[in-house]
Amino acid sequence: MNSVADRGWSLAAQDIVRAGARMDQRGWVPATAGNLSRRLEDGRIAITRSGCHKGFLAQDDVIEIDPEGRPRVAGDRASAETLLHTQLYAHDPAIGAVLHGHSVAATVLSMILAEPAIRLAGYELLKVFEGQATHETSIRVPVFDNDQDIARLATVVAPSLGTMPAGYLIRGHGVYVWGRDMDMALARLEGLEFLLACELERQKR
Amino acid sequence: MNSVADRGWSLAAQDIVRAGARMDQRGWVPATAGNLSRRLEDGRIAITRSGCHKGFLAQDDVIEIDPEGRPRVAGDRASAETLLHTQLYAHDPAIGAVLHGHSVAATVLSMILAEPAIRLAGYELLKVFEGQATHETSIRVPVFDNDQDIARLATVVAPSLGTMPAGYLIRGHGVYVWGRDMDMALARLEGLEFLLACELERQKR
Amino acid sequence: MNSVADRGWSLAAQDIVRAGARMDQRGWVPATAGNLSRRLEDGRIAITRSGCHKGFLAQDDVIEIDPEGRPRVAGDRASAETLLHTQLYAHDPAIGAVLHGHSVAATVLSMILAEPAIRLAGYELLKVFEGQATHETSIRVPVFDNDQDIARLATVVAPSLGTMPAGYLIRGHGVYVWGRDMDMALARLEGLEFLLACELERQKR
Amino acid sequence: MNSVADRGWSLAAQDIVRAGARMDQRGWVPATAGNLSRRLEDGRIAITRSGCHKGFLAQDDVIEIDPEGRPRVAGDRASAETLLHTQLYAHDPAIGAVLHGHSVAATVLSMILAEPAIRLAGYELLKVFEGQATHETSIRVPVFDNDQDIARLATVVAPSLGTMPAGYLIRGHGVYVWGRDMDMALARLEGLEFLLACELERQKR
Repeated sequence: MNSVADRGWSLAAQDIVRAGARMDQRGWVPATAGNLSRRLEDGRIAITRSGCHKGFLAQDDVIEIDPEGRPRVAGDRASAETLLHTQLYAHDPAIGAVLHGHSVAATVLSMILAEPAIRLAGYELLKVFEGQATHETSIRVPVFDNDQDIARLATVVAPSLGTMPAGYLIRGHGVYVWGRDMDMALARLEGLEFLLACELERQKR
Repeated sequence: MNSVADRGWSLAAQDIVRAGARMDQRGWVPATAGNLSRRLEDGRIAITRSGCHKGFLAQDDVIEIDPEGRPRVAGDRASAETLLHTQLYAHDPAIGAVLHGHSVAATVLSMILAEPAIRLAGYELLKVFEGQATHETSIRVPVFDNDQDIARLATVVAPSLGTMPAGYLIRGHGVYVWGRDMDMALARLEGLEFLLACELERQKR
Repeated sequence: MNSVADRGWSLAAQDIVRAGARMDQRGWVPATAGNLSRRLEDGRIAITRSGCHKGFLAQDDVIEIDPEGRPRVAGDRASAETLLHTQLYAHDPAIGAVLHGHSVAATVLSMILAEPAIRLAGYELLKVFEGQATHETSIRVPVFDNDQDIARLATVVAPSLGTMPAGYLIRGHGVYVWGRDMDMALARLEGLEFLLACELERQKR
Repeated sequence: MNSVADRGWSLAAQDIVRAGARMDQRGWVPATAGNLSRRLEDGRIAITRSGCHKGFLAQDDVIEIDPEGRPRVAGDRASAETLLHTQLYAHDPAIGAVLHGHSVAATVLSMILAEPAIRLAGYELLKVFEGQATHETSIRVPVFDNDQDIARLATVVAPSLGTMPAGYLIRGHGVYVWGRDMDMALARLEGLEFLLACELERQKR
């Protein structure tokens, strides 16, 4: 069966198209930056094709990859960062959507702060992240150094899997967030980007 | 009579859906943040359901609560902060709409300023607030410390009721504004957010 | 003849509705701030009704005033600042549109700078203003102190009429710009707001 | 054959109209600023007419010029900066689109930095520019002093042709970027503007 002919696939692709438009509206997918994926209930993984603008996706810009990140259809080319998506899906079967975007706040904060993590504390919006019930807490958001060797970058990320309720940043690059479905992943992305924007403002005083 | 079947209810729900979209456009309801309510002329209170994105509300995301903040329909779950809405309605029978949003300016200002209030002075836009006829005045906007115990937070807010023409802030959390109808509440929200944005800019020099 | 029944009036009102939506998109008419007017070829003046949101105008929110700023229709209420519009129309018969908005940049800059004017120099965009053919120039934008007595404010503005190619600011309040038609007035508004945004950024270093 | 009657021309004009709307959405073509062009496969060059708002273009606002920048139709008036477009087309036959916009970030950065170039380093988004395969690089973006004599400005730009993978800036004025087609030029514009916004933020600490 052609993977794009069924309804489950179509809904997953629509999720990705809609999320891309939303991220573009906020300025988080400039140029051809960013990549978005969804895992269907049957285990198939849908991800954005390499090189297209994520704010103006068509369903045909969504391709299927296997759990190792290889395109199912010969000739399809997935994003260079596909392994960071499949790493998350392999780690946690509850994850149904992964989003990666580039915002000015994430890019600048990760470059001006030398620390290996950004600590977010005291914000009501922390409650959007998994397992948080109060603002009287702090969340550690790791910042990993950027690496064009994505397999190697994945091994650096690996030890932190399961301990990143708000996702993570790649220095000078952007954020990775996820959720059980696209709405959850988008809500976490909006929450994290809001808090990074707050942190960047607080750096200016 | 089913509360959602009548025209008064439908108009109130439309007010909430429209205001949520407007707040989202301005970036004031990231993730699932914010809550919006309307009191109908017959006294019923319509408020946003807990957990949904306020920028993409459907009429079904608007539920009815009683004056004590309890959902009228079993199984409905109102926002955790419902008591801050009903407190305002109980205080002043002229209030017909209450809005709560999270902006970067309100969040950051309330965290970088240690004072129990922000004083806004000299702005023409102060005239949008109740009882103000000139810019040659100053308005005190209380900043209450955040508290996950909303009943307790409400008792902290209570002594200030009737003395907050521009609404109030919760530290690291957001703003509460209100008005006789949704247009008035939205105008005050826009006025307050504009002035907070101005204040934040002035902190940067 | 009813002033709203003819085509000339209708086009003028449409100009105002469209310009209000544009200004709202840019965040320059928060709450019920701002006012917009057009002078028709036959001399009639159309201006926004007092108290409505300028981003969501209907044609019925546009009323006719006489050259002294009095509403033609009993019961209509024009903006408190109508005299600043009629002053411009009386000064220069070539003016066909006047716009007043409130931006964060104009508000903050006019409050943090104590000088009676802002000087804009070296920007290519200066060429959008009347009589400017090069960036190698500087334009003086007067900043008048705010005053709730608009007639008195108008007498303060009067001596500068004819010497303000980029419009003027009222401190803590906003900008006034004009042009031979609405497109020209909007272009100058966009040009001035862009340059004020640049100046505000330059204050932050 | 009338140049506007054929399909190739129509598609080129649509590219320009769409790119103008996009640039306006981002705030990069205030007032009547900016100009946009496309070279068709048959060598004809389509460019925006002088003086119109680039965010609200109609196909009639796109005119044909010859390789020396002269309008093909008597009475048409091309942008004053047409020569900077034709210079790029003459330099590299692979260029199919040129975009010039004015952003706050480009304007301010080019005015506050005295250097003859801005160096962008360490950003993942550098990969959007020609010939870049890693973030571990730096790109030099020349900043040329503004000049109302465009022929003279072109001679200043000329020696850098072929060495500007991310385009160039004109001081106090804006950016020039290009690509083999409109999508590529837009992606590079978004990439460059994103990085300039990052650089401006980093100046504020």
